[in-house]
Amino acid sequence: MDIKKKALDYHEFPRPGKLSVESSKACDTADDLSLAYSPGVAVPVMEIADNPINAYRYTNKGNLVAVISNGSAVLGLGNVGALASKPVMEGKAVLFKKFAGIDVYDIEIDCDDPDEFIQTVVNIAPTFGGINLEDIAAPNCFYIENELKKRLSIPVFHDDQHGTAVIVAAALTNAMEIQHKNIHEVRIVFLGAGAAGCSCARLLKLMGAKHITMVDRKGVLHTNRKDLNQYNQDLAVETKGRLLSDAMENSDVFIGVSGANLLDEDHVKLMAKNPIIFALANPDPEILPSKAHAIRDDIVMATGRSDFPNQVNNVLGFPFLFRGALDAQATEITNDMLLAASFALAKLAKEPVPPSVLDAYKTNSMEFGRDYLIPKPFDPRLIEWVATAVKEAY
Amino acid sequence: MDIKKKALDYHEFPRPGKLSVESSKACDTADDLSLAYSPGVAVPVMEIADNPINAYRYTNKGNLVAVISNGSAVLGLGNVGALASKPVMEGKAVLFKKFAGIDVYDIEIDCDDPDEFIQTVVNIAPTFGGINLEDIAAPNCFYIENELKKRLSIPVFHDDQHGTAVIVAAALTNAMEIQHKNIHEVRIVFLGAGAAGCSCARLLKLMGAKHITMVDRKGVLHTNRKDLNQYNQDLAVETKGRLLSDAMENSDVFIGVSGANLLDEDHVKLMAKNPIIFALANPDPEILPSKAHAIRDDIVMATGRSDFPNQVNNVLGFPFLFRGALDAQATEITNDMLLAASFALAKLAKEPVPPSVLDAYKTNSMEFGRDYLIPKPFDPRLIEWVATAVKEAY
Repeated sequence: MDIKKKALDYHEFPRPGKLSVESSKACDTADDLSLAYSPGVAVPVMEIADNPINAYRYTNKGNLVAVISNGSAVLGLGNVGALASKPVMEGKAVLFKKFAGIDVYDIEIDCDDPDEFIQTVVNIAPTFGGINLEDIAAPNCFYIENELKKRLSIPVFHDDQHGTAVIVAAALTNAMEIQHKNIHEVRIVFLGAGAAGCSCARLLKLMGAKHITMVDRKGVLHTNRKDLNQYNQDLAVETKGRLLSDAMENSDVFIGVSGANLLDEDHVKLMAKNPIIFALANPDPEILPSKAHAIRDDIVMATGRSDFPNQVNNVLGFPFLFRGALDAQATEITNDMLLAASFALAKLAKEPVPPSVLDAYKTNSMEFGRDYLIPKPFDPRLIEWVATAVKEAY
Repeated sequence: MDIKKKALDYHEFPRPGKLSVESSKACDTADDLSLAYSPGVAVPVMEIADNPINAYRYTNKGNLVAVISNGSAVLGLGNVGALASKPVMEGKAVLFKKFAGIDVYDIEIDCDDPDEFIQTVVNIAPTFGGINLEDIAAPNCFYIENELKKRLSIPVFHDDQHGTAVIVAAALTNAMEIQHKNIHEVRIVFLGAGAAGCSCARLLKLMGAKHITMVDRKGVLHTNRKDLNQYNQDLAVETKGRLLSDAMENSDVFIGVSGANLLDEDHVKLMAKNPIIFALANPDPEILPSKAHAIRDDIVMATGRSDFPNQVNNVLGFPFLFRGALDAQATEITNDMLLAASFALAKLAKEPVPPSVLDAYKTNSMEFGRDYLIPKPFDPRLIEWVATAVKEAY
């Protein structure tokens, strides 16, 4: 069966969509219903009216995250609109439940005005214990997240920014160890200065990175550029370099969050010894691993794809970040929590892998090294390692 | 265990709240995830971007209802606020699933301004196949429902209004049959002119009722009153009567949607022969059945309570109204659909009851008559009878 039909059949049969809302309590008798609804339900209502914190005791709020999008930057497909983003948001809900036991309502908001979008999220926020923003185009995504963080006292998290950043930082930590490089010294080039690129760059700076050059469609983000928005001006650097090739010269790390095939042979050759290349564009990376390794044999590489080694996959982050934040009844997800998640992931990759993980990936060995920089999604230790680290960092 | 502790324990243990969101599709392997999420999910996204109707094929939209409240009129508790209304909305979700297999996201909107409330619901509407408004105070509830109906092309339904009306109309149809009265001739008195009262009165008018007197806190709604709002002016009548006792004189039907013990012995005595009394205030009716029957022996009576005969219970309506509407992919719930639901309920009460229903209610017989005017919630025939009638009426 071709992949297209397989994907459509999966979504359509036996019933449309991927989510089901079930009662988690008995509701088989009139007695049950008198507790679930009138008259019994009046008791928790009054307890919450007396003290809002009781919502965490008597409702699903404390384990419920809203995955919210306006559909303005869905996968690599662009602005498909709120409704068409629904399969992605339902899919995210599936992942939240599968990996961290978190209940998710997907909410598609049909609204392009960022202030109205913000107000809508603020208005529905009492329902939820956390807000996961998803697939919202830059630069609005920065403004929206900042405002929501200010106005809400539950965690607000834009996964395309910080989720990606956490996994990239973990993979880079281990890649640098293998290549004998140091975060304070490495020269890092980002291709792509949108949501993911900017957030990654900032997290790496928090980890001590000192030499980061951002490059977008128009070239290097330098301090003389007049077209930068207020959300990436702080990442512009003083340099005479204008082109990607200028930035790549003698660089140690390339992180692509841009588009297919944008890194060519000359760029790769310009890099310093033992370079690190994260070509994260999906489904087609900035450069294919086979091509990169053919150009030079000293590269450590990661992509966004599951069929190559070292998949930088957000599912390693967001379920456990929210699990930790919800378990802590955190009012926000702090930078310390992001860093804790990242370090936990990096550390876990250096532990021996249990047989169940080898079985799940049909392989005989999985050992820390250039082909295994970060854990795999089906590693059952992730929730314990990462969620606990996040909770403790709050 | 006292009822209060029992209700709180039910809501708190083993995990807080009453709902769980589950994946309805396999998601155990990397292959499964590649369909549920990237890259497979891109295929239904593009199908929906091409044609919005495909959201009903590839997402949960077509079986998903939002139960939405601002907490301004919760049960009989008044304005407890959005957050404190959450146990009720989750309870409603439990009932939707239990009785009609419908998935519900409860959404509590923290917003007292009706226009902003409306805009919020409009913005999140792409997520859902229908909107059930709940526990919103009058008169805002009328404005909100009207505007949402105009602006959305999915069913919008305020259960406190129309859900109640459907069940009251069904019970009254059968009560009139037993008391040998006719809808065109009966003199009906409503005590309570809020959401439920006004909607009931309008539905009865559609059924042919010609003599309806509404009474509120300030007495009879007559055409000289200056304090009526735009939403109940049409129900005011020309009359010299000013008091409840004036209205009750020679009346055939009393429908109380007001408060405890507001109907006294004198009122009951004033009614015509073979009167019908629906004392629907919860938990304490306008008059207790024991008291009413002691005053005179020709009464047919219903209440809102499960421990008396003839419980007027909204759960007989909303699950099946939405089931029918969703199955029809209806863009609205029309008056014809409300009437069809009501007639189906009235008719079903006259059918022999299957043994399973007798078992569920621990009784030996349940026969159409003054103690069995309408079906019971656990009657498994309801979904077939009512949802089908609703769907066919669209």
